[in-house]
Amino acid sequence: MVLTQTEFFMSLTPTRDDKFSFGLWTIGYNGTDPFGGPTRAPLDVVHGVEKLSELGAYGLTFHDDDLFAFGSTDAERQTQIDRLKQALADTGIVVPMVTTNLFSAPVFKDGGFTSNDRAVRRFALRKVLRNIDLAAELGAKTFVMWGGREGAEYDTAKDVQAALERYREAVNLLGQYVTDKGYDIRFAIEPKPNEPRGDILLPTLGHALAFIETLERPELVGINPEVGHEQMAGLNMTAGIAQALYQGKLFHIDLNGQRGIKYDQDLVFGHGDLQNAFSLVDLLENGGPNGGPAYDGPRHFDYKPSRTEDESGVWESAAANMRTYLLLKERAAAFRADPEVQEALKAARVDELSTPTLGDGESYDALLADRTSFEDFNADAYFNGKGFGFVKLQQLMVEHLMGARG
Amino acid sequence: MVLTQTEFFMSLTPTRDDKFSFGLWTIGYNGTDPFGGPTRAPLDVVHGVEKLSELGAYGLTFHDDDLFAFGSTDAERQTQIDRLKQALADTGIVVPMVTTNLFSAPVFKDGGFTSNDRAVRRFALRKVLRNIDLAAELGAKTFVMWGGREGAEYDTAKDVQAALERYREAVNLLGQYVTDKGYDIRFAIEPKPNEPRGDILLPTLGHALAFIETLERPELVGINPEVGHEQMAGLNMTAGIAQALYQGKLFHIDLNGQRGIKYDQDLVFGHGDLQNAFSLVDLLENGGPNGGPAYDGPRHFDYKPSRTEDESGVWESAAANMRTYLLLKERAAAFRADPEVQEALKAARVDELSTPTLGDGESYDALLADRTSFEDFNADAYFNGKGFGFVKLQQLMVEHLMGARG
Amino acid sequence: MVLTQTEFFMSLTPTRDDKFSFGLWTIGYNGTDPFGGPTRAPLDVVHGVEKLSELGAYGLTFHDDDLFAFGSTDAERQTQIDRLKQALADTGIVVPMVTTNLFSAPVFKDGGFTSNDRAVRRFALRKVLRNIDLAAELGAKTFVMWGGREGAEYDTAKDVQAALERYREAVNLLGQYVTDKGYDIRFAIEPKPNEPRGDILLPTLGHALAFIETLERPELVGINPEVGHEQMAGLNMTAGIAQALYQGKLFHIDLNGQRGIKYDQDLVFGHGDLQNAFSLVDLLENGGPNGGPAYDGPRHFDYKPSRTEDESGVWESAAANMRTYLLLKERAAAFRADPEVQEALKAARVDELSTPTLGDGESYDALLADRTSFEDFNADAYFNGKGFGFVKLQQLMVEHLMGARG
Amino acid sequence: MVLTQTEFFMSLTPTRDDKFSFGLWTIGYNGTDPFGGPTRAPLDVVHGVEKLSELGAYGLTFHDDDLFAFGSTDAERQTQIDRLKQALADTGIVVPMVTTNLFSAPVFKDGGFTSNDRAVRRFALRKVLRNIDLAAELGAKTFVMWGGREGAEYDTAKDVQAALERYREAVNLLGQYVTDKGYDIRFAIEPKPNEPRGDILLPTLGHALAFIETLERPELVGINPEVGHEQMAGLNMTAGIAQALYQGKLFHIDLNGQRGIKYDQDLVFGHGDLQNAFSLVDLLENGGPNGGPAYDGPRHFDYKPSRTEDESGVWESAAANMRTYLLLKERAAAFRADPEVQEALKAARVDELSTPTLGDGESYDALLADRTSFEDFNADAYFNGKGFGFVKLQQLMVEHLMGARG
Repeated sequence: MVLTQTEFFMSLTPTRDDKFSFGLWTIGYNGTDPFGGPTRAPLDVVHGVEKLSELGAYGLTFHDDDLFAFGSTDAERQTQIDRLKQALADTGIVVPMVTTNLFSAPVFKDGGFTSNDRAVRRFALRKVLRNIDLAAELGAKTFVMWGGREGAEYDTAKDVQAALERYREAVNLLGQYVTDKGYDIRFAIEPKPNEPRGDILLPTLGHALAFIETLERPELVGINPEVGHEQMAGLNMTAGIAQALYQGKLFHIDLNGQRGIKYDQDLVFGHGDLQNAFSLVDLLENGGPNGGPAYDGPRHFDYKPSRTEDESGVWESAAANMRTYLLLKERAAAFRADPEVQEALKAARVDELSTPTLGDGESYDALLADRTSFEDFNADAYFNGKGFGFVKLQQLMVEHLMGARG
Repeated sequence: MVLTQTEFFMSLTPTRDDKFSFGLWTIGYNGTDPFGGPTRAPLDVVHGVEKLSELGAYGLTFHDDDLFAFGSTDAERQTQIDRLKQALADTGIVVPMVTTNLFSAPVFKDGGFTSNDRAVRRFALRKVLRNIDLAAELGAKTFVMWGGREGAEYDTAKDVQAALERYREAVNLLGQYVTDKGYDIRFAIEPKPNEPRGDILLPTLGHALAFIETLERPELVGINPEVGHEQMAGLNMTAGIAQALYQGKLFHIDLNGQRGIKYDQDLVFGHGDLQNAFSLVDLLENGGPNGGPAYDGPRHFDYKPSRTEDESGVWESAAANMRTYLLLKERAAAFRADPEVQEALKAARVDELSTPTLGDGESYDALLADRTSFEDFNADAYFNGKGFGFVKLQQLMVEHLMGARG
Repeated sequence: MVLTQTEFFMSLTPTRDDKFSFGLWTIGYNGTDPFGGPTRAPLDVVHGVEKLSELGAYGLTFHDDDLFAFGSTDAERQTQIDRLKQALADTGIVVPMVTTNLFSAPVFKDGGFTSNDRAVRRFALRKVLRNIDLAAELGAKTFVMWGGREGAEYDTAKDVQAALERYREAVNLLGQYVTDKGYDIRFAIEPKPNEPRGDILLPTLGHALAFIETLERPELVGINPEVGHEQMAGLNMTAGIAQALYQGKLFHIDLNGQRGIKYDQDLVFGHGDLQNAFSLVDLLENGGPNGGPAYDGPRHFDYKPSRTEDESGVWESAAANMRTYLLLKERAAAFRADPEVQEALKAARVDELSTPTLGDGESYDALLADRTSFEDFNADAYFNGKGFGFVKLQQLMVEHLMGARG
Repeated sequence: MVLTQTEFFMSLTPTRDDKFSFGLWTIGYNGTDPFGGPTRAPLDVVHGVEKLSELGAYGLTFHDDDLFAFGSTDAERQTQIDRLKQALADTGIVVPMVTTNLFSAPVFKDGGFTSNDRAVRRFALRKVLRNIDLAAELGAKTFVMWGGREGAEYDTAKDVQAALERYREAVNLLGQYVTDKGYDIRFAIEPKPNEPRGDILLPTLGHALAFIETLERPELVGINPEVGHEQMAGLNMTAGIAQALYQGKLFHIDLNGQRGIKYDQDLVFGHGDLQNAFSLVDLLENGGPNGGPAYDGPRHFDYKPSRTEDESGVWESAAANMRTYLLLKERAAAFRADPEVQEALKAARVDELSTPTLGDGESYDALLADRTSFEDFNADAYFNGKGFGFVKLQQLMVEHLMGARG
């Protein structure tokens, strides 16, 4: 497991096999924020694809409106699609995911699928259906839906039960559509707690997972959680991803950085909560410590190059995402391989949690009859004894993260 | 809808029909917190039942350890049960819900159902099974499970996938047990994001709803969301409750007050986010604005009388919970009855969200063929026009909440 | 204190004496946010002044860039100034405060007074000096400085000690300038914890108050706290304002609404934390409960009409700010006038806090010699007794806020 | 700067010169939290001192109530003091700081210096004066005051202006006392935003710094900020410490770990926000990047060994604090020594912020006359150019933190 210096630095150079992808809107972010306009010129998609290819990424993703402005003519739209296709062909970059923009144009000011205005909802469906056709044409396997405007600032402004019913109607229709068309596309819902709305529907990955179970074709729909979005609710991204994997619903992921509960920062992956980034990469790459499922989809970065940067900072930051991921992957591998860590995991009984609580074939009657489980169980031994050794394990993690072991 | 002064004040006096219940641990809270010991003497359960009865509550709930200390002998336990039963008989107070304590004793320092230590998990199951028998004996219809210690401070300390599997094993077993025994009991999981653990499993009502779908008997299991717990994650309680109602899973509710993202405050209901309390009572009492389901279970207060108070403050605060609820109920009724509000709701197209987006029997083909939905749709009209009037609606709500209209 | 219905509704109609003022950027907010462009057309300043006058406001405030776009020619600038002056003359609206924009243009992407780039800092000073001349010309008495870009996303990117020294250099120079010019202008620093930068210098009103003490002319500089900004750090606005008043530094105030720790919402005043809004208005209008200073400056609204609204919503929301303030003022007056409240305040010993802890002329020696203060003091009486009755007081407040008393 | 493996591991072994100190209440924390009682037996102070000495710490600190229970007789008190003194003499451990407990006993349920109850305030002063005598006797140079109960849950319950006046009265008296007695003791106020009170007076280090300026002897009073407390308000600890150093007020520091805005976690230092811990250690050890002051007081850990641990976990966690600090110190030194970092700092113009904005002796008139600063300044060059390179710098920091460079 110990790498030579050369192997170590090689391991930090991204290749197509790493399946790193970027949103066109990420490298194309012009710096606009609530208190200032653009600080960078528009990025041409062809240039973007070429640069990503150079840097070692394998995929590009986009919202319709990223590629061709909202309200484009058919000809303008087609020109941009053709330019993208040529760039893909020239570079080998793929489009593993496409998403849709139901949040920027004024028409979506109260949302798309759940706007109080029915005409807007119909328009939204049409826009999405058209973009699904494009996704299929480009070979995307995942269609992400971030409902950033599906929500409200005021509790009286939205009938949430009705909104969920309209959301369900929309996703059911899309599921029917891809099924009928024979598209090899699955949907991934991206949760977010707030911003730009005061409260957004399906605010966490938990709410989205629950909602999916109400759909006609739940098997077609999973989630696309974003590091920063879960952390904006103070939630643990790694624990949430573990639940998504447990429920078989991690269809896609958005990697980035966030420094606590505040506005959506979209920092470079690893530039936020570094410890949680470590455990996340460990889980995605290696699965649960006792063999639970890992993740094999694209490692997709949904971040924003800081507004302070010029174009060189855009590519520095794109590279930083991948490099940090690979560095964390290397650290996680070393963590798992360290015998002292294995020993500490055992002392903390982390493995014991995979053993069923009941014995093989044991009924509750048998449990009730087992006096060692209750009547003769020494609960007092857990006072001033039988410590779990979690702090030691955590310290080993921190030292591995900091490259201070072996 | 307009009440006379007398009717108004009568409407604020709780009766049994209001179905107000209190946890024994709430009125019995002795003031211990992380930085100080008790400021009040222990509350005897009989005295507690009598006072609740006087104040107009209808129900008492409890954890096993509230009624008889952890480690009680069978005789001590039975004495307390008998004393409680007598008090119930004497007052007419009922026990609509019972819950269990898998978090206070040292043995549960890493949780109960999901402790890394298998012997602890077995002990926890035994403790819960025993308490379910008691719940059934007392006629409780709901058994709440708050897994406050099911979690971790450190990402490496817990295999979350395994923990969910153990949680599932436990709840499945309990479901089997009540089914076999013929108990008329349903389970309600109570989510919380953190405290006392750094991160708790099933941190929001969304995560709990999602988890329930993985169970063998999902119909037996719902949720018991707490106002403060959802707000500790910055989430909108009313919106969450709407989703729970939409999914048919609001089996019980914990009402209290919280002032933002911080430690769990357990204030009196309405002493936290008053606007959200208004919309919550409106939803619980009246259902969605367009007819979605309301709630008919106990209005259960899970709060703590402030540590600064002596016993008189305990009863003042218990009464305050009920009075504020009834006041909000009155304000919500007036809000709904106000023609100007109805007009503003209509202007905001709140009702229009209940109309399906597709016409009756309309297929996606028909939608695709409808040029008015896309090709001829005037999206530009939503710039500088077609406002939703949400602010006006919100202001009407605030004025009703403040009793400043009619 | 009890008002007739007519008096009550009259009391909710704003007049010039109420000293309500609005930022030009508030009513002129076009709806742009991080995820969408404008939903409203630009607002002309003359129209804005006329509407504010109609609605009962007394003042308009502005950033230089609100009135004339960044980069305007001298002629364009003058035209806009002249148009504003005429509108002021026509309506009687005044300009009590002017502020400056060192955050929107690309040149300020790393801040103004504390940009790492010295040329930017010099440009920023020039821009501000010019705007101070304009403020003086228009008769403004307060010059607000919100350093929204003075900060960093990354700890290594900013030498905070040097940044504070540059901030100090800038404010000292401005203080010298207005002194030399004989301008009757004081400065007010507006704190904010984050957004648009990851962390902003002087993140809370406390940090700003502390910084002011390091200046050459601290008497010229106070603070302009904003409700939402303090609440974005989870802090209690009313308590902070009390400290600002205590230190004689509340030179101006920004009223608006925020629903917890999240992005800067800039809701209508009272549409956020309504309880804290109540106590804030009570403090501003009536001073401390035992006679501490109140506030007599402009009641300035720094809010954003929701992006979902068209122009009618702009004016509805402007009116809502004032109406809610007046309603809270009325409720606060009734609260103070209620004998039961006075009794509860006394029971809670709120007044006793104004009595010095030591007797008149009492030295520590005398205190040390007073056996009743320690040796014979019965600390045990505070267990299960000597409650403070805070919950009862709070409930009285909630009921007054809800208009449910008298 | 590059260390051999041996030197590197030596550098992680704490020595007395590192000035690491621990609160007696930290290693003595018995595991009590809001939802559970003790999981560990009481720690004897002598054993604690011996263990700290073995582990390489240099100092012990304590609250009066840690050493001898509240309400101890004089004899009991003296016995414990004598036992402590002997242990200090035996080991060479010193007591650099003493603090006082005005928050645990029921008498302090509304605070100490600012309790609404005057008799409590007098008792609190007596308790503190007595403990200052002890602090002087033990040679402590700093007396810390954490006013954890000085606050309120309800805005009406506390006259904040009066509370600040009482706080001021108390600290003035203490300042007079140590001056008269000739004690070589300075005071350090420890801020916290909330918990155990809903809102605490002087909630951040900024508020405390501002308050200190109102005192009679401000030179005697500084602050003792705690990592977790500032982070509970979402604030950047390093930036706050930089302001404290800038204002000459960092008299003491509490190091620990916190994972975001939630209850006070008191994790091991570095087990919270690792990036902020890096920049904090860099600042404490090395001062500002351009030479601003560093810190030379005790490195004091105020943390809690997790409740899941037995005694071995207590000492593992104590050691982990020191080891992580030393590791971060080593990483920070390597960061500063790296030529590529120096280049990136220069490119980001971090050093340029130390150059005054005005030239030597330059007046505002000269600035106004300098056309290059405004009229001829090319602000447009900052669009799509003149990037700051902050992301690159941040990535270098992350890689140094992770031990991935050199």
